[in-house]
Amino acid sequence: MACFITFEGIEGSGKTTQIQLLDEQLRGQGHQVVVTREPGGCQIADRIRGILLHPDNSAMVPRAELLLYAAARAQHVSEVIRPALKADKIVLCDRFTDATLAYQGYGRELDQELIKQLNLLASEEIRPDLTLLLDLPIETGLGRALQREVDLQDNTEGRFEREAFAFHQAVRNGYLALAAAEVQRFRVIKADRPQAEIQRQILDQIEQFFQQRQSR
Amino acid sequence: MACFITFEGIEGSGKTTQIQLLDEQLRGQGHQVVVTREPGGCQIADRIRGILLHPDNSAMVPRAELLLYAAARAQHVSEVIRPALKADKIVLCDRFTDATLAYQGYGRELDQELIKQLNLLASEEIRPDLTLLLDLPIETGLGRALQREVDLQDNTEGRFEREAFAFHQAVRNGYLALAAAEVQRFRVIKADRPQAEIQRQILDQIEQFFQQRQSR
Repeated sequence: MACFITFEGIEGSGKTTQIQLLDEQLRGQGHQVVVTREPGGCQIADRIRGILLHPDNSAMVPRAELLLYAAARAQHVSEVIRPALKADKIVLCDRFTDATLAYQGYGRELDQELIKQLNLLASEEIRPDLTLLLDLPIETGLGRALQREVDLQDNTEGRFEREAFAFHQAVRNGYLALAAAEVQRFRVIKADRPQAEIQRQILDQIEQFFQQRQSR
Repeated sequence: MACFITFEGIEGSGKTTQIQLLDEQLRGQGHQVVVTREPGGCQIADRIRGILLHPDNSAMVPRAELLLYAAARAQHVSEVIRPALKADKIVLCDRFTDATLAYQGYGRELDQELIKQLNLLASEEIRPDLTLLLDLPIETGLGRALQREVDLQDNTEGRFEREAFAFHQAVRNGYLALAAAEVQRFRVIKADRPQAEIQRQILDQIEQFFQQRQSR
């Protein structure tokens, strides 16, 4: 059964871990699963990711950033997401169009209508069936994200972690506003709790979602 | 006197050489000149150029390509072109928005209206005052471009040179159509002639253009 599930949330919200856990679970149930992420997910989009996230590129203007995200997404949708859905797989994607609305719209204050148009263009109008928003206070999330950078000894992807607190707060609030505006698609998961609890809640939500889909 | 002059033409049309010659001439006349190019012209846009032109990236889909050009342009306009024009300089730019219409519109057959919208967004609505189209048969141009690659022992920017002849023919025809539609802004220069002759014709055109501007 083709199904497109996206994970959203600020830095350090635990998306990557939860996607891995859900992937294992779904595979255990016999589903065919593709795990991917944005920006990136294929070679060309990963190269664009390298430009987007590298702290050296702090001079990047918001319009260029927005267009780079759209470029990476166009390649990723065409090369990875659309073919996987066509082959009846479950796609778990770490960030998608909502991230652009949250970061470039609410965070950078670029025009929301413009972002929506670029999202439609880049995503070939593919929309998530379900979006799990992992929500937590920005202090907790940023603390985790910066600690991870230290642990991994990797400082090539920290451009966003270096933004001001007010930016991250606007992104978090943006995500919550998006979720409130589309309650059918979004599930807000409290993410400042133990990993196993978060996992359990996600599995519950996924199960409910599958049941609803089958009963339709 | 702020002035934005763009050079357009297919691969191997001699733009780079003619821009250098014009730059020397204008500086000799006491003008302040900024020479730049697209894609590129500043560090972030040069990194995007690296992705756009590298032959390894042959899997790039047309929409991603279009959005990458727009991203590079947004950065370039904001960081280089707009500040130079504001400082009353003459900007000589190797390719600009017309190249996107010629290559992605006429060449890739992407929607022209979409390209125009992205061009406006990326260029902050800055338009060239004068555009010199260096026109020549594609066989001559491509031969030169491929020879240059051999001479420079550089195979990192040849993605477009590897396109089919029909693509390049469509690009050339596209450029001629753009010039025909905007005779006020465009000057078509026959570029399959000795360098010095081309230079002389360009200087004549520039002189006329400056006279017209002053008399306005």
